[in-house]
Parts: sequence; structure tokens; C-alpha cells
Amino acid sequence: MALIVQKYGGTSVGTVERIEAVADRVARFRKEGHDVVVVVSAMSGETNRLIGLAHAITDNPTPREMDVLVSTGEQVTIALLAMALHKRGMGARSYTGGQVKILTDSAHTKARIQHIDDRNMRADLEQGNVVIVAGFQGVDEQGNITTLGRGGSDTTAVALAAALKADECQIYTDVDGVYTTDPRVVDSARRLEKITFEEMLEMASLGSKVLQIRSVEFAGKYNVPLRVLSSFEEGPGTLITLEDDETMEQPLVSGIAFNRDEAKLTLAGVPDVPGVASRILKPVSDANIEVDMIVQNVGKDNHTDFTFTVHRNDFKRTLEILEKTREELGAREVIGDDKIAKVSIVGVGMRSHAGVASKMFEKLSEEGINIQMISTSEIKVSVVIAEKYLELAVRALHSAFEMDKEPSERSY
Amino acid sequence: MALIVQKYGGTSVGTVERIEAVADRVARFRKEGHDVVVVVSAMSGETNRLIGLAHAITDNPTPREMDVLVSTGEQVTIALLAMALHKRGMGARSYTGGQVKILTDSAHTKARIQHIDDRNMRADLEQGNVVIVAGFQGVDEQGNITTLGRGGSDTTAVALAAALKADECQIYTDVDGVYTTDPRVVDSARRLEKITFEEMLEMASLGSKVLQIRSVEFAGKYNVPLRVLSSFEEGPGTLITLEDDETMEQPLVSGIAFNRDEAKLTLAGVPDVPGVASRILKPVSDANIEVDMIVQNVGKDNHTDFTFTVHRNDFKRTLEILEKTREELGAREVIGDDKIAKVSIVGVGMRSHAGVASKMFEKLSEEGINIQMISTSEIKVSVVIAEKYLELAVRALHSAFEMDKEPSERSY
Repeated sequence: MALIVQKYGGTSVGTVERIEAVADRVARFRKEGHDVVVVVSAMSGETNRLIGLAHAITDNPTPREMDVLVSTGEQVTIALLAMALHKRGMGARSYTGGQVKILTDSAHTKARIQHIDDRNMRADLEQGNVVIVAGFQGVDEQGNITTLGRGGSDTTAVALAAALKADECQIYTDVDGVYTTDPRVVDSARRLEKITFEEMLEMASLGSKVLQIRSVEFAGKYNVPLRVLSSFEEGPGTLITLEDDETMEQPLVSGIAFNRDEAKLTLAGVPDVPGVASRILKPVSDANIEVDMIVQNVGKDNHTDFTFTVHRNDFKRTLEILEKTREELGAREVIGDDKIAKVSIVGVGMRSHAGVASKMFEKLSEEGINIQMISTSEIKVSVVIAEKYLELAVRALHSAFEMDKEPSERSY
Repeated sequence: MALIVQKYGGTSVGTVERIEAVADRVARFRKEGHDVVVVVSAMSGETNRLIGLAHAITDNPTPREMDVLVSTGEQVTIALLAMALHKRGMGARSYTGGQVKILTDSAHTKARIQHIDDRNMRADLEQGNVVIVAGFQGVDEQGNITTLGRGGSDTTAVALAAALKADECQIYTDVDGVYTTDPRVVDSARRLEKITFEEMLEMASLGSKVLQIRSVEFAGKYNVPLRVLSSFEEGPGTLITLEDDETMEQPLVSGIAFNRDEAKLTLAGVPDVPGVASRILKPVSDANIEVDMIVQNVGKDNHTDFTFTVHRNDFKRTLEILEKTREELGAREVIGDDKIAKVSIVGVGMRSHAGVASKMFEKLSEEGINIQMISTSEIKVSVVIAEKYLELAVRALHSAFEMDKEPSERSY
């Protein structure tokens, strides 16, 4: 008899038939005696349809009105799911974000949750009702409708679970869990039973787009056990929790993440004087371009090379900015490369075990793959390589770290 | 510099292009210096789409959830219209019924307005903003979303105009005003400059479906000048106001209304004893069937004939009920006729002038049209005739009362 928050994304509620399937699943949990709070997204395609209407009117829709518009998508789904549960003889009540109420700041289209009033939901749960909440939306102090930004329904679910001190927050999606790496690249990729919030954050931010990063941060912060499951097939999914000290067998590495979204820029032959890094990066961040990895080589002859990566969409703009900086600083040249990929191995076990990075470098070298940049954190090692080697690198590392095997069966 | 409430129905906001046209018109009024509050319906087709989704799930959708669902239709329109006004450099803010707030009772899908808080709207108007309100919806004491029933956007507009003490409430629709009768039946039908609330109520309830009856009642009760105009062409429309005592030339008759929606039932040979009318009508009203006209002939031999009309859709059910009643009361027979039409002449001038009814009966007799039932009120005379004579009757009466002429040019 647990309190469970379930979240169903747009594909899971994309048609009336799928909404009925969700109702079946919710009803089953309820009949098993659990208290259930359901968070739903807009039916797939609906948010884009609404955004299309706005853009047919103006290229520059007002954020406040955008939120009024797109928040209707989830409102439709909550009503339909409530009706489907009523048809099954199940008590259920729908809530918009404002009705809950989910209080946010006033940053329209990217609002942040400030407080959740759990009284209405508690009263309904006590009466045996299923509570159905529109994801992705809230209301500010002045009563304006706000949205959390696209995909924000995950965040709504985790925030509700935290507010209600739920036993588990289940995110239903179109994959059946979190994998050691992308199964489309590595056939033997294995579903993880468990992963820590920290690892999941690294995996998510590195391109494994199963969950929204913000929702994982939120879950970690409030210690809400998070489970990723498929809404189309049965299975235990992947549980995302705090690191469990009692687990003897903490796997050394949990997964391999990668992305092709970045581009690399180098300002070569920069005079090596104090403050040069900030003089290079400030114009970039002033242009609202986010910098990911940064490497500055040891200088020689009082000159150094400065390399960093940005999102590939920002590549050309950054080149232009850097050309100006080159002139100002009297640097030698600007070198750009948007044919790169980032590959990372992630695992909390690295905290207490050395040698992961060197094994990774050795393996890549064996495959003849040149490492262009390296960046490390407590629980991950990332390298930048030429994009053409991406699949080769991921497969080689997946095999080298025996990630297709259960941690207990690995030879290291 | 007036305060004007404008209401645009589903056809007037049916496409993005039409919403732009509404924005042009609203902007023009605003630039002339008027304060403008706009009430909009859902884009045409949208409410039916949403109802279709509900019915794909269940034949019996919960009224509370139905309101959550269909209220999204107007919410989409308010956001799009606000964006279109912003594009024109005009300040504008959208409000859902709950945000205004329009407080209603909790009778979902047919709620009644109890109170309107004008503070948010006033604050916006003072800042020079156009206020855009979702029609048809409100919120109850508990914060549940309610709707006023289909077409209820007219009522929202009038209620807002009353709460704000607006100078005029303009209802934009697909006709350019209220006519002496249906122009599709009588070529020479004339647009009325002015009509009283009472006349409009009789016209509306008798089948001239320009405005919702409830909105006219509301306007009359709070003395809100109401104007019906076309959203597709320019023109003064028809002003609906209180009876103006200063007008010397009150037209004797203002218009001719008619409908084919009714059916006639007679219980013949009923024992003429006290209480018989209620014994006949109670089973009918118990079945939620609304009775319109009622006639009881003078009895002879202690027996009488009892005739009434109901909506044609209820004809068969009423026949069945009446058959049972016939047995219980020992009446002779049940006679039904669903090939009837009701024709009414309406005019406040009848109050002070006799002879309208007799002129009507005389004219119908000249045309060889048999009158089956008669019902009168202070400002109207209605007759039931065979449906096949409907057009003939309407044209003959329109001509006899010279309704194609201005009141001052008439010979009576």
C-alpha cells in the first residue's frame, strides 16, 4: 500500500486508445491498494499544433500568452483520463497546475516550481480518488498560467512525489529503462536495474535523453526514488536512487553516454598572460552561448593554445566571435571543427577505483582513435574524438568494461 | 470614449486569418480611444472536436471533466487574439473565466454566473490594455472549472458589460442585425435599427436564433445596451435596449418570428373534472419534456379536448406517455401532428393598440390558412398552422403589416 506518482508522456497518451490503456494500468495499481497520483502530458502532436497556431499569427508570441495557449494541451488529457477512469468505476479528479496549486515563479515558458500545495490532492487520496494532474504547468503569485518548458511534465511528477513524500515516482516512456548505452549503437547494451541520481545526471546531460535533467536533479535533491518504465510493455524498468552504501557490488562503470551535438574551437598562439581565459570566454557567454569542455595547454614561448566546445548550432556564431578576439589578443589563428563527438564513461564506482581513465585511453589507442580533449569528474571520464570513430569507440569501450554482463560477472 | 464589451463567436474566430481580422477591429476601437473588453468563443469546430474525444471514451462523460475539457477551446482563442493584438503594438491580456474571476454555481455544463470580480479587468483597462476574456466559462467556489452551456459566450459578454457598467455590449455574429423576419423566407425583410429587450426575447424564443435567450434576459435585467453586428461587414447592426418612452413612433409590430420545431398533441374526449390538466401534463414534465403552448377547449357533455405542443424531438415519447394517460383518464383518443409550424407577430406597440390579432387572423383567413391554436401575450400573438402554409403565412403577414417599410412610412 504505497503512494505512487506515475507520469505518462505524450506518446503514452497520444490517442484515445492509449489513454484507455493508461486508465487500465492506473486502475490496476489502485485496485492493488496503492494511492495513485497521475501526471500527464499533452497528447503527442497537440503541443506542436498549438505552437503552430501561435506562429501562424506572429514570429514572436508573447511568453505569457504562449503559456495560456500550450497549457490547454495537458488540460485536455487530464479530463479524458478522468473520464476513462470513471468509466472503469474508479473515483478520479483532474487538476490543472493552477488548481493543485503548483506555485511557480513568473518566468513564462521556463518557470520554476516554488511550492506545491498538497491539500487538495491529499483530500482526494483520502477519499479513495485517483488524482490526475496536468504536467508541465503551474501558476504564479498573480494567478498567471505558467509552463515549465517542454518536457517539464517529468519535473511536475517528481515535484509532486517530493511534496507528497511518495514512495516512488514512475516515469512511463517509450523505452523500458536506462541502458548501459544506446542499444541502437551497441547490440549487447544491457538495461540497468538500478542507477544513482548522480550517474543518471551524467548520462542524461551527456545525451541519453530518457529523462529531463531537471527532474533527475529534483529527484536527487529530495531523494525521490525514480523509476523509468515502458508504457507499452510490462517490466521493472530502471530504478534511480541514492547511492546504496550497503550494496557490496557497486559496479565500476554503469554506462557509456555520447553525443554528436558539439563543435570544437581552438584559439592558437595566444599570448600566455593572466586573464586571457576570461577575455576569450566572456564575449562567448555574453552572446548566450554555452561552453561545455575547456582545455588550455601548457604554454611555450609565452604562447598557449585555448580549446573549448559549444553546441553545434552555435558553431558559426562562435567562430565569428573568436575571430574578433584573435585580432584583439594578437593570437595566431582560430581553428574550428564541428565533426567531433564526445564519449563518456560514467560510474560512481570510479570514486574509489583508479585506473578507469587509463583503461579507457588504452582501449581507444588500441583502436587507433586519437583523443582530442579530455575532461573528468568524480564519476565520469569524457573524451572528444573525431565523429567518424564514435560507434567504434562506444562498442570497444562497452566490450572492454564488460558492460553487457551483470556487475557480479565481470572480470574486473 | 466609451467602455465597450465586444463578443466574437466561433465563426468570427474560426481561423487564424479571422482572428487577425478581429484584432484589426479591436485595435481600431482602441485607437479611437475606447476601452475594450473582448469575449471570444472557441474556434469553430473546436468544441465539437473536444466533445468527440470525450465520446470516443465514454457515452456518459462526467460533467465536471467535460467542463475541464471543453473550456480549453476558448482558452486557445484568448491567447491567440492577445498575440495578434501584441503584434499590432497593442497592450492586451487574456483571462480565463477563473482568472477574471467569473464565479458560478457548481452546475457543471450549465452553470449560472453568481458574481464577477471586476478588479483585474479594471486594473488592465486603466493601464490601457485590451482585456480578452474566455467566454462560456467560470469557476465555482471550490475552484472547479465550470461552463455556462453551449453558446454561453453571449451571456459572458453581457454579464461582463453589466459588472463593468459598460456603455454598450456588441455581439458580433454572421448576420448584420435583427430582421423583421427571416430574409431567406421574405425577400423584403428589413434590418431593425432598434428593438426592445422584450421583443428580442419573444423573437429569440420563437426561433430567430441571433442571440442566446439568457443573454438577452440578462441584458434586460441589468439594462445593458446590446448591439448585434456582423463581424464580416461594416454596419450599425441592431441595438437592443429598454423601451424608449420618448420615441413618438413606436412601431405597432416589430417582427415576425416562426419555427418548425414543434409538434402538437391532443387528448380528445377527456372527462372535464378539476385537476385534469395537471394529470395530463405532470407525466410529461416528469419525463423532462418541455411544453410550449397549451389550449383547453370549452367542454361539452362534461368532456373536453386538451391540446399542447412540445419540441418535435420529444413527439414520439410524448405520444407514448399520452397513450397511458388516455387509459388512466378514460379519454377517447390521442391525436398527434408533427407537421405544424408556429408563426408569431411581436411588437411592444401592441400594448397600447388593439386590433393586431384580428388583423392577423383576417389576413390568414384571406389566404385560406386554418388557425389550429392561438396564444397571446402582451407583446405577441402566436398561431399554430399546418407546416406547408408557413412561408405563405409569413410573407402575407409581413406585407399586411408593411414591415418592409420604416415605421414612419406605414399606413397604419
